[in-house]
Amino acid sequence: MFNCRSCKKLILMLCLATILGAGSISFRSLTADEGMWTFDNPPTKLLQDRYGFTPTQEWLDHVRLASIRFNDGGSGSFVSAHGLALTNHHVALGQLQKVSTPEKDYVKDGFLAHSEAEEMKCPDLELNVLESMENVTARVLAVLKPGMSDKDALDARKAEIAKIEKESMDATGFRSDVISLYQGGEYWLYRYKKYTDVRLVFAPEQQTAFFGGDPDNFTYPRYDIDMALFRAYENGKPADTPQYLKWNSKGSADGDLVFVSGNPGSTSRLETVAQLDFARDYGYPITLQILNQRLAILQKYSAEGAEQERQALNMIFGIQNSVKALTGEYNGLLDKSLMAKKQKEEADFRARVDANPEWRQDYGSAWSEIEQAERKFQPRAKQARFRGVGGSRIWGNALTIVEYVAEVQKPDGQRLDGFHDSELESLKFRLLSPAPVYPQMEELLIADGLARTARELGPDDPFVKAALGGRPADEVAHELVTNTKIGDAAFRKSLLEGGAAAVAASNDPMVVVARNVDPSVREIRKWVEDNVESVETKAGEQIGKARFAVYGKSTYPDATFTLRLSYGTVKGYPMNGTEAPPLTTLYGLYDRSLSFNKKPPFDLAPVYWERKDQLDLSTPVNFVTTNDIIGGNSGSPVINRDGEIVGLIFDGNIESLVGDFVYDDSTNRAVAVDTAVMTEVMRKLYDAGSLADELEGR
Amino acid sequence: MFNCRSCKKLILMLCLATILGAGSISFRSLTADEGMWTFDNPPTKLLQDRYGFTPTQEWLDHVRLASIRFNDGGSGSFVSAHGLALTNHHVALGQLQKVSTPEKDYVKDGFLAHSEAEEMKCPDLELNVLESMENVTARVLAVLKPGMSDKDALDARKAEIAKIEKESMDATGFRSDVISLYQGGEYWLYRYKKYTDVRLVFAPEQQTAFFGGDPDNFTYPRYDIDMALFRAYENGKPADTPQYLKWNSKGSADGDLVFVSGNPGSTSRLETVAQLDFARDYGYPITLQILNQRLAILQKYSAEGAEQERQALNMIFGIQNSVKALTGEYNGLLDKSLMAKKQKEEADFRARVDANPEWRQDYGSAWSEIEQAERKFQPRAKQARFRGVGGSRIWGNALTIVEYVAEVQKPDGQRLDGFHDSELESLKFRLLSPAPVYPQMEELLIADGLARTARELGPDDPFVKAALGGRPADEVAHELVTNTKIGDAAFRKSLLEGGAAAVAASNDPMVVVARNVDPSVREIRKWVEDNVESVETKAGEQIGKARFAVYGKSTYPDATFTLRLSYGTVKGYPMNGTEAPPLTTLYGLYDRSLSFNKKPPFDLAPVYWERKDQLDLSTPVNFVTTNDIIGGNSGSPVINRDGEIVGLIFDGNIESLVGDFVYDDSTNRAVAVDTAVMTEVMRKLYDAGSLADELEGR
Repeated sequence: MFNCRSCKKLILMLCLATILGAGSISFRSLTADEGMWTFDNPPTKLLQDRYGFTPTQEWLDHVRLASIRFNDGGSGSFVSAHGLALTNHHVALGQLQKVSTPEKDYVKDGFLAHSEAEEMKCPDLELNVLESMENVTARVLAVLKPGMSDKDALDARKAEIAKIEKESMDATGFRSDVISLYQGGEYWLYRYKKYTDVRLVFAPEQQTAFFGGDPDNFTYPRYDIDMALFRAYENGKPADTPQYLKWNSKGSADGDLVFVSGNPGSTSRLETVAQLDFARDYGYPITLQILNQRLAILQKYSAEGAEQERQALNMIFGIQNSVKALTGEYNGLLDKSLMAKKQKEEADFRARVDANPEWRQDYGSAWSEIEQAERKFQPRAKQARFRGVGGSRIWGNALTIVEYVAEVQKPDGQRLDGFHDSELESLKFRLLSPAPVYPQMEELLIADGLARTARELGPDDPFVKAALGGRPADEVAHELVTNTKIGDAAFRKSLLEGGAAAVAASNDPMVVVARNVDPSVREIRKWVEDNVESVETKAGEQIGKARFAVYGKSTYPDATFTLRLSYGTVKGYPMNGTEAPPLTTLYGLYDRSLSFNKKPPFDLAPVYWERKDQLDLSTPVNFVTTNDIIGGNSGSPVINRDGEIVGLIFDGNIESLVGDFVYDDSTNRAVAVDTAVMTEVMRKLYDAGSLADELEGR
Repeated sequence: MFNCRSCKKLILMLCLATILGAGSISFRSLTADEGMWTFDNPPTKLLQDRYGFTPTQEWLDHVRLASIRFNDGGSGSFVSAHGLALTNHHVALGQLQKVSTPEKDYVKDGFLAHSEAEEMKCPDLELNVLESMENVTARVLAVLKPGMSDKDALDARKAEIAKIEKESMDATGFRSDVISLYQGGEYWLYRYKKYTDVRLVFAPEQQTAFFGGDPDNFTYPRYDIDMALFRAYENGKPADTPQYLKWNSKGSADGDLVFVSGNPGSTSRLETVAQLDFARDYGYPITLQILNQRLAILQKYSAEGAEQERQALNMIFGIQNSVKALTGEYNGLLDKSLMAKKQKEEADFRARVDANPEWRQDYGSAWSEIEQAERKFQPRAKQARFRGVGGSRIWGNALTIVEYVAEVQKPDGQRLDGFHDSELESLKFRLLSPAPVYPQMEELLIADGLARTARELGPDDPFVKAALGGRPADEVAHELVTNTKIGDAAFRKSLLEGGAAAVAASNDPMVVVARNVDPSVREIRKWVEDNVESVETKAGEQIGKARFAVYGKSTYPDATFTLRLSYGTVKGYPMNGTEAPPLTTLYGLYDRSLSFNKKPPFDLAPVYWERKDQLDLSTPVNFVTTNDIIGGNSGSPVINRDGEIVGLIFDGNIESLVGDFVYDDSTNRAVAVDTAVMTEVMRKLYDAGSLADELEGR
């Protein structure tokens, strides 16, 4: 299952953006249906040549404006003129859990608002719609002066980017992000309309959305109705969303040309071999070790009782999902034939660059500079990875508040990423979320994180000293969680409003620890910026330019959790010695449940047995397409030639996990929920007929 | 799908028994549930230790006497006291085709006898039941004298074996076969009761038995009702078969201990690395090339019309099945980690032998002798493989008749294998089969075989000269098929009865060619016997003895298409990133058909739609077990602790194909039809209620 893989970087904590992030641009000729294309550069010629279809500008604008980014880490789309927004249940899961209580568990039982009045406000969900795109490459690069050091160049770029964002926000009121594409080959200003009053309308039981659980996750054939419906509000009323996707209840059929419009989180296809080597040797193994340990702790906690299970469910889900995805990617990097292919591509590209004296002069040294930076990074990689505590909301909130009050005092251009003026509103929205905090679970997570950090970095590391002062991790964690008030949104608000003075004066133990560890976190962050990120940014730009010089702009940039269009067909694939079908049906849902004797995670919600005879079991449930997607695309609409929605992306197959590095259309498949099954179960199982009417425009 | 893999040797033609056959004994400690055990040496201790179950001698005798060998290349069991015999549809397929006509196609439409009178006699089906087993190792080995050459020793062994068989047959009237187990470590006399009046009682449509066709073959999850019922007759009446398996309509459940009693065809687990290397480099690639070419020719023929399709169906089915199985095995041999494991096992074994001076003296040279023999074989391997014409019944019959009349004139002990007195009755039964011959198809197969032989061996090879005399293969094939009468059973009978004189005098062109090629076929056969088989037989015996010396008799011999008992549990397995379930249901059959929009081979017979509502769709269809089986086991009963039948083996999963060389209980699975679905569809779809009553003992 594809889940917020943009969150990969959050899960991987500090600096993984650097470990897995910046890089160069690749050189492959594209295989069929490959590509996560920006809306300014759709693959018009490829589409015409292969499918005889050319999307008009109107078609492209309509699809773009109906597409939604769920800032939790997913995608979605408007499916009615009144703000109704479709995404995956697993994208909605965090919100569902936040509005649940021990008495009323919407994750387990599902939710349906029978009227507008019952639509339930989400604590901290922000939706973005991409209103416009502007190429600002020239402006960003204009600040670079001959002879600048890499570090100065990085600072200058960042300052200019912050300036562009601020100007745009002030002028338009839109959220304004400057993003780097083609690893710095281009910079674009993306302006987003934001919705922060978002209300839950419908969700089935998690068991229905995630039938088959972790075993079936990232696999196919599949039988998951992984859907949820929200409604965007403006001024207390359902938002007007005239650019919505028309619902096509017939769904899709084998061989259909389909498009996916969504926000793929992160790929590493254009990275250099040195960067992939570093990820293989330092990124993945450490991350998988951390996640597996955290998972074990949470599973133990979850087994203590029903309420603990409810609290931990979303995080366990996320970690299992990440572990399965990252394991697939890691196996890709361990696959010698995949790496040999990458090496060959890079060697070919470099040979072409070297064959032209001018290119060689301008770009030729970029690869070895990156390699040297990675090598320099190795001895400090563990500090970059372990100076932190993952998974704990109170720890994360406290540290962010300490950073916030310091950063906002600086000129915008000099701030840490994440604290620019244009980002503050969304950041505060998240920091002040009223969602509940579970102290017992927080304590376990902090104890786990601190113990690991102490073990990996030793007692003399400044972070370890500042956090533990020689005491046992579980003792410190217990004290912190018992005595802090940071779990209280009002307290967090008072700190933010009180600013640096309030934070400095606070005796709250969590704030104190955050203040104490802050210098060591900043130190390694700055070291990585100065020694790795600045080099890779500059070298990445060189390679990006080299790529345009050698190959032209006939390809797409790596994924950046920004809006992309992919195309493909509904199509089975060779699997397990036979063929995986293009689609599955409700018959298969019952087969798979009974095949395991209804044993969890293959059990069905009771209504599936009670009302089975009302269902048309031949209704398609899930289907697979050759569209090139990745985590973050969860919740993306699958769209036909007519711009109608025919499905809902929720996963990729197991063969797609190496998609972080390569796309192979013979087996890489996106997995989607068919529109047909959504209206079928809404009408026949969930008594949600009027909502189905709204979808179907009746 | 497991199909007559004993026929592997027939398909691979001349000398593949040698190429893939003789060898040494392996040294692994057994993994859980491994083993194809002889009934004289059941794994009693393992069963008690692992499952707390000890089969009584009565249990073992009952299971053995209820088990049937289908000499076409499969297994089966008695399931009523009146000779009712259950096997797979695909084991019955050859017979079904032989009783079909262009007007009445029982393969396509299925068959049901509504009364005894309607039960339809099979032209050439022989069933064997293993009545007794006797260890004759001492007697066979007693004929070996010190100083004998390998060749003389081989002759002496064969002569003694023929003598034992003849004596036994004369004394008991039973078919009597001396078989070599543990590659010559033991010799056993197996006595069989034969049934040659066998009548067809019930078969579903082939589409039902082989739903999913070649793509789903050898895979799982699966939805095949791959069953057929015959009845054994004696003296024109249903045979009394008091030792039958009681039908358990509940089938099996996850975790059940189950047994499979059947005739696994051939494995190579105890072969030396040199033998596996030879198979990899000379056996598999050549065979796959031949089969793929033959397949292409037959598919082209089949596409010419409905009648051609009907004629070629069984052979296409068999070749596709072999290609898929052999490809899986070949991939195993190409898998460096599998071969490394084999090399390590052999090195360990040899080190133990070498560490004991006496063992070293007696057995130490065996491996290098086999290696030398294989090396000597290499330059003649192509002649051994290509001096023949595969697939053609008239070519095969003519050559066998020419050999027959010459061999029967010799003393029994000096004859070619296959022509000993004890084998003649079954041989004649096959040679005189009244089953129809399809001249057009025969011509294509002969032309293909002769053209390939000419291409591979060159015009000067004695076989090529004798067969073609410089003329084009298609011209010769056309003349042969047009003018021969060998397709007529009466003509074949007259040749057999007329003996050498009649064959020598015959002007039938097919007989003339068979006479002409016979010397070159005998020449290479004798050369292989003298230079390879004799060495491998002796060295195999040495390694067999060494194995008993080093490891004791705690294991099982390689498969030899004789009766074996395997044990295991009903159990899913990790697959495709998730879990394959222990069983499937009728819901899944409909899902898979609709998933492919009912496109062949995923279409269903019309009755499955017409009477769908009468079925209990939760009925189990297929299930998987850890039992260690291989081709030849097709049709074997799956038996519970109480000696009742709960399923019907019909296939292995794709992961089991390397089972020729290794067994891995983590993923190797046998695939069976559940008894529950057989009675469900017989009663509700096929109006075969009274037959179901007979099965269920009502």
